[in-house]
Amino acid sequence: MEYSIAVIPGDGIGPEIIREAKKVLDKVGKVCGHSFRYTELLMGGASIDVHGVPLTEETLAAAKKCDAVLLGAVGGNVGVSNWYSLPPELRPEAGLLKIRKGLELFANLRPALLFDDLRKACPLKEEIIGEGFDLMVVRELTGGLYFGERKTVIENGLRKAYDMLTYDEEEIRRITQVGFETARKRRKKLCSVDKANVIDSSRLWRQVVKEVAKDYPDVELSDMLVDNCAMQLVKDPGQFDVILTENMFGDILSDEASMITGSIGMLPSASLGKTKLGLYEPSHGSAPDIAGQNKANPMATILSAAMMLRYSFDLEAEALKVEDAVRSVLSKGYRTVDITSPGSTLVGTDEMGDLIAEEI
Amino acid sequence: MEYSIAVIPGDGIGPEIIREAKKVLDKVGKVCGHSFRYTELLMGGASIDVHGVPLTEETLAAAKKCDAVLLGAVGGNVGVSNWYSLPPELRPEAGLLKIRKGLELFANLRPALLFDDLRKACPLKEEIIGEGFDLMVVRELTGGLYFGERKTVIENGLRKAYDMLTYDEEEIRRITQVGFETARKRRKKLCSVDKANVIDSSRLWRQVVKEVAKDYPDVELSDMLVDNCAMQLVKDPGQFDVILTENMFGDILSDEASMITGSIGMLPSASLGKTKLGLYEPSHGSAPDIAGQNKANPMATILSAAMMLRYSFDLEAEALKVEDAVRSVLSKGYRTVDITSPGSTLVGTDEMGDLIAEEI
Ligand SMILES: CC(C)[C@H](C(=O)O)[C@@H](O)C(=O)O
Ligand SMILES: CC(C)[C@H](C(=O)O)[C@@H](O)C(=O)O
Repeated sequence: MEYSIAVIPGDGIGPEIIREAKKVLDKVGKVCGHSFRYTELLMGGASIDVHGVPLTEETLAAAKKCDAVLLGAVGGNVGVSNWYSLPPELRPEAGLLKIRKGLELFANLRPALLFDDLRKACPLKEEIIGEGFDLMVVRELTGGLYFGERKTVIENGLRKAYDMLTYDEEEIRRITQVGFETARKRRKKLCSVDKANVIDSSRLWRQVVKEVAKDYPDVELSDMLVDNCAMQLVKDPGQFDVILTENMFGDILSDEASMITGSIGMLPSASLGKTKLGLYEPSHGSAPDIAGQNKANPMATILSAAMMLRYSFDLEAEALKVEDAVRSVLSKGYRTVDITSPGSTLVGTDEMGDLIAEEI
Repeated sequence: MEYSIAVIPGDGIGPEIIREAKKVLDKVGKVCGHSFRYTELLMGGASIDVHGVPLTEETLAAAKKCDAVLLGAVGGNVGVSNWYSLPPELRPEAGLLKIRKGLELFANLRPALLFDDLRKACPLKEEIIGEGFDLMVVRELTGGLYFGERKTVIENGLRKAYDMLTYDEEEIRRITQVGFETARKRRKKLCSVDKANVIDSSRLWRQVVKEVAKDYPDVELSDMLVDNCAMQLVKDPGQFDVILTENMFGDILSDEASMITGSIGMLPSASLGKTKLGLYEPSHGSAPDIAGQNKANPMATILSAAMMLRYSFDLEAEALKVEDAVRSVLSKGYRTVDITSPGSTLVGTDEMGDLIAEEI
């Protein structure tokens, strides 16, 4: 089969890590008899430099025509880059928000798992790590404070800003279904996180989650308040299987969850919608400080490509091949600088890509 | 001098821990020649059981007449207690929100510090703890999503919930001033946390913080995005001195910050307004599961009483006496069950209160 992939290198280390992901995909294609056709697109700072906006309508239309989108990272150094003298809606990150909304990618899947070989990098004590952890944050991605109406006005002579947080039952239902489906394929535990003791949208959230739960009697459902979840992630991450939550809470909790693994350079993400067209990107940022130095860890992007094989192309066996290759290279002791430890073999971005491609 | 204190034992372990705090206060009074007069008030579940509401207007008025409020904890076991079959505005926690708003306590100070003797309880690896950490979260407490307009309606046949997040410059300015004043008395570093790449209220927040900063040239200001802050707290908590943030972000981050100390039973909090009348409570909850068993750690409440001496009564020397007493009892190896470790001496709630009072 032929698959068409919109490839968005983006900014900072984006181009380097995307290059390695394509290397691995090409090897998968060769070994398994698929062909991947790439369409390179501009987004973020790279697009601002050319078009003056972080994502043009034409680029969005081009992405829509592909089977999946593979993204490196967008954004620059806030203190340094000119992109941040632009108004917010013209900055690099606005491109990301626009493509999420434009492709209706309402479900953001962010795994946070501790690789056995990287326990030393984990900031938590051995007693807390215990037998390790492997959780998935399912974050709503096209609603809430991110896309509600907002305005800044003068009232009684004072500047005043408004941001609306809103959810309707349909928005909650569809992401909840993704949460339950995800849990069903894993350890069958779903923890829905909200702030139902304070806000209405969380109360509706909790109600709709309970309704949807009736269709998934095989999945164990629990509720947790967001402040408590921020604590529990540190105290005992092993208790979680799937965490389901709204957009802003998910932004915060998924980043916290990635950091407790200690190896954010390893963590992929998928953003999905109603169709098979998904967007795949590493959980980490564009790391402008190390861009172009062959230091970046390409594994998160390579594992994002694996998620693409799984979710957009239904190539489960191929996805597992990539994931196994990553694990195997790790177990042989190869490390990029972000995850290096005494006794390991330090390699650059490109060599890491080569090693993983070879394993396939 | 005589000081009048509104004492709200509340629910769960509240009464036990408040008893010990009074014990310590009375000893301070005796040694230093002050007299503390207590007015016991009902709030939370304890008030619901008597009055049907978590906080009556009369109770609020009575609290207003005192010099300070000392609170144990409110709330019960959600799955078990009848209080949670009531509508949200009648549940125990609503009393807390009402007294915060009613006393105009817009500034919530939540220290998260690692006691030297409790490094073992810290969930973070020794390399991350380094020389320890001692940070203060200054959280806005009477604005944002907590007190904006909200509604749940039917639109196009769908249930839809709205929560308004709003801040005006005056609300931001006064909490920012508290943040800078707090930093000035500490290590002179203020990190303001927002989500300015997405929401308007955070953009206004960042702008006003910059304006206020002009009056505090001796304090080093930085900005951080909330998702990044959730990561940095785990990665390197020692980088922070004072974290300034809005209500909901502060709820999440201050809980995360308390948990990384590993000893939330040790952490006090203060809620302050424009006047000297403040509310002081432990950072932990009402722990209904261990209520009445003489197991609760009273130290957070005792340290909250110390904050009361400092902020509401300007009794700095007395506050230090209490804090030193707590440290001294810890260094002698006494522990309640939540912070016990091999080689330490396990004591109950009341004995811990006795030991601390004796040290004064
Ligand atoms: C860049 C930013 C707008 C984005 C978000 O907040 O969603 C990022 O933090 C993320 O989590 O992908
Ligand atoms: C009980 C709840 C309403 C409260 C809050 O969210 O403010 C609590 O979590 C806190 O932090 O004091």
